[in-house]
Amino acid sequence: VRPDGRGLIEVRARGGPYFVHVGPGVLERVPTAAAESARGGRVAVISDDRVGPIHGERVAELCTAHGLEVTYLTFRAGEASKTRKSWSILTDQMLDAGLGRDSCVVAVGGGVTTDLGGFVAATYLRGVPVVQVPTSYLAMIDASVGGKTGVDVRAGKNLVGAFHPPAAVLADTAVLSTLPREERAQGLVEAFKHGAILDEAYFAELTSVTDELLAADTTAATAVVSRSVQLKAEVVENDEFEGGRRQILNFGHTIGHAIEAASDYALGHGSAVALGMLAEAWIGEQTGVTSPGVGGVLAAALEPLLDPGEATVEASDALAYLSSDKKARGGRPRFVLLDRIGQVAEGDGWTHSIDDELVAGALTRVLDRS
Amino acid sequence: VRPDGRGLIEVRARGGPYFVHVGPGVLERVPTAAAESARGGRVAVISDDRVGPIHGERVAELCTAHGLEVTYLTFRAGEASKTRKSWSILTDQMLDAGLGRDSCVVAVGGGVTTDLGGFVAATYLRGVPVVQVPTSYLAMIDASVGGKTGVDVRAGKNLVGAFHPPAAVLADTAVLSTLPREERAQGLVEAFKHGAILDEAYFAELTSVTDELLAADTTAATAVVSRSVQLKAEVVENDEFEGGRRQILNFGHTIGHAIEAASDYALGHGSAVALGMLAEAWIGEQTGVTSPGVGGVLAAALEPLLDPGEATVEASDALAYLSSDKKARGGRPRFVLLDRIGQVAEGDGWTHSIDDELVAGALTRVLDRS
Repeated sequence: VRPDGRGLIEVRARGGPYFVHVGPGVLERVPTAAAESARGGRVAVISDDRVGPIHGERVAELCTAHGLEVTYLTFRAGEASKTRKSWSILTDQMLDAGLGRDSCVVAVGGGVTTDLGGFVAATYLRGVPVVQVPTSYLAMIDASVGGKTGVDVRAGKNLVGAFHPPAAVLADTAVLSTLPREERAQGLVEAFKHGAILDEAYFAELTSVTDELLAADTTAATAVVSRSVQLKAEVVENDEFEGGRRQILNFGHTIGHAIEAASDYALGHGSAVALGMLAEAWIGEQTGVTSPGVGGVLAAALEPLLDPGEATVEASDALAYLSSDKKARGGRPRFVLLDRIGQVAEGDGWTHSIDDELVAGALTRVLDRS
Repeated sequence: VRPDGRGLIEVRARGGPYFVHVGPGVLERVPTAAAESARGGRVAVISDDRVGPIHGERVAELCTAHGLEVTYLTFRAGEASKTRKSWSILTDQMLDAGLGRDSCVVAVGGGVTTDLGGFVAATYLRGVPVVQVPTSYLAMIDASVGGKTGVDVRAGKNLVGAFHPPAAVLADTAVLSTLPREERAQGLVEAFKHGAILDEAYFAELTSVTDELLAADTTAATAVVSRSVQLKAEVVENDEFEGGRRQILNFGHTIGHAIEAASDYALGHGSAVALGMLAEAWIGEQTGVTSPGVGGVLAAALEPLLDPGEATVEASDALAYLSSDKKARGGRPRFVLLDRIGQVAEGDGWTHSIDDELVAGALTRVLDRS
C-alpha cells in the first residue's frame, strides 16, 4: 500500500503481470486501463441491473468521455443469472455489436459479474482482455484476483469456466458505502479467511477494525483490501491453476459450499463460509491437527459478521450435498485444516480426508446455534 | 519424420510442449497418452455418431483395456452440432459421470469433434487436458494442432471458444482409408495451403503425390501430415494467440469462409478454401503483390481436389457475407496474399486491405467456373 492510502499490487500470471489498484476514486482509472487493453478502442461494459445504474453506467460514461466506443450490457442481478444462458446472451450481444478481437470487456459489479464477465471475455473470439471493476468486498478481496472465471450449472456452482487473469483490477473502496451493510459483512469473511490461513497479525488487525470495515471506512477498507489482495496474489502466483498450495484458499469452503447449497442459496456465501470455517476448525481440533482454542478465536472474530436472523440449514441436507459434490468433483471431499491462526496444517498435499461421522458432527455443531 | 515412417513432432506451447504422433497404428498409443494426462485414471472419450462406431468405440475399448475408467459420449455428426448446446450437453454428461479435475478428454473424429471436444476440455472444471485423435486429413493437418477450440454461433463459425493446446495428438494415418474420398480431398486443400504460404518444395511434392494421398496411401499420408504439422507448428509456436504472423494460416480463408457461408455450408470447407485461395491469388496478381502466374499454378494443383458437381454459390451472397463478417469480427476483412508459391507477401503486418470492387471481381471469377 502506498503512502497516499492507495494500494497498487502487482500479480504475476503466466500470461504476464497485471496490477490491482485499490483505493477511493480508482474507478476514474478504468478508461485508461480499458484503452490499454482494447487496441481497437471498443469496450463492452458488463454490469447487472442493480449495480449498473449506480456504477456501471458511470464507468460507461467515463469510458465514452475518454474516447472509447462503449457497448453497455446488463443482466438481471443475482447468482441465478450466473449461467451458460446469460453467457450466451452476452456473447451474442457483443457479436451483434461487432466487437472484434481488439476489444475488451469491463466487468463492473460483485462476484457474479466478475465471474460471468470474466468467462465471457475468456471465450469471446477465443479470448479478449477483461478489466475487472469489483464493487463489493467479496469481489475485491476474492473474486477479481486470481483469474478464476465461470458459471454455475445444474450439477453445482462454478463447474464450467476458465482461468483468465484480468488485464487490470480497479477496486474503488469508495463504492463500498453503496453496498448494503449485510453484503459488506458477507465479503469480509474472506478477509478473515486470509488472515486465518496466512497471517496472524492481519487476523488480529481485522478483529480490531471490524466496525470501521462494516461502516465502509475507506482508510480501513483500502488497507484491508490491499492486504488481502497481496496475500492471495502470493498464493496464486505460485500455483495459478490450483494444482497444489492454492487449495489452502478453500479453507472453510468445502463445508461452506455444502451449507450454502443446502440453504438453496438463501444463506449468503460469506455466512456459509464463516460457518464452514468454524466447522473445519472444530474438525481440526477434534483430530488434533488444529491447536486447541482456534475455533473459539475464529468464532469470536466472525461473530460481528454473522446475521442471527439468517436462513436455517439442516445438517442432513448439507451432508447430502457433500456426498453428491463428491460425485460431481470426482472423489472424496478434501478439507483444508489450520495448524493455528495464520498457518495451515500440511496434510496429504494441502488437504485432509475426514471421516463422514466427524463431518456430520461438525455440521450439527455449527448449524445448531440456537 | 522418423526412419520408420512414423512422424513425431514436438510443438512448444506456453503451457509446455506436446507431441504430435503421425503414422499408421499410432491409435494404439492413445491409452498411454490419456493415462499420462488423467492422473485420476478416468477419461471421457468424445466422438460423433458416424466416426464413433468405427474409431471412437475402439479407442474407448483400448483405454478400458489399459485400465482406464471410460465415459463414452457421442453427438450427432456434422457441423450443425458444433454448438453451445452440444457443449452444454457434453459437459453436463461429464459432470453426471463424476469426472474430476484429474480426468481428461479424448476427442476422436474430424475437425468438428476436435474443436468441440477441445472446447469442452478447455472449460470443464476450468480446464482439463485433451488428447486429440484426429481421423480426417483436415483434423490431422489443421484442426488438432495449434490449440484453437470453439463452437459456431448465430453470428458465424468459431466465434466462441478458447486457446487450449492438446496434451498430445495421435494422428493415425491408417484410419484415413475409412474416410470418403471426397472428404480426403477436402482436407488435403489445407496441406496445399501450407505449401503455398511456407514451402515451395513441399507444394511441388504435394502435386506429385496427389493421387496417392487421395487413395489414402499411408506412406504418402504420413509424410504429408507430418510435414504439414511441422510447418504449422513452427508458425503457431511463435504466435500462439494469433497476434501476428499466425494470420498467414488464414490464406484463402477470408474469401473461403464467405463462400462456405454463402453456400449455407453445402460446399465443403476444403472446396471453399480452395476457391478462396484462387480468388486471393487473383487479387494478389491484380494488385501486383503476387507474382504473375501463381494463380494458374494453384489452379492446376487444386484441380484434382475440386468436385465439378459441387454446390453453386452466388458471388453476391458471398459478398454480403463478407460485409456482415466485417461487423461480426470488428473492422474490415483483411486478406493474406502470396508473394510467390512458398512465400507470403508482407503487408500491413501480415495482411492487406482490399477494395470491395476487386473482391467482387475475384468472387465472380472463381465462382463462375461453368
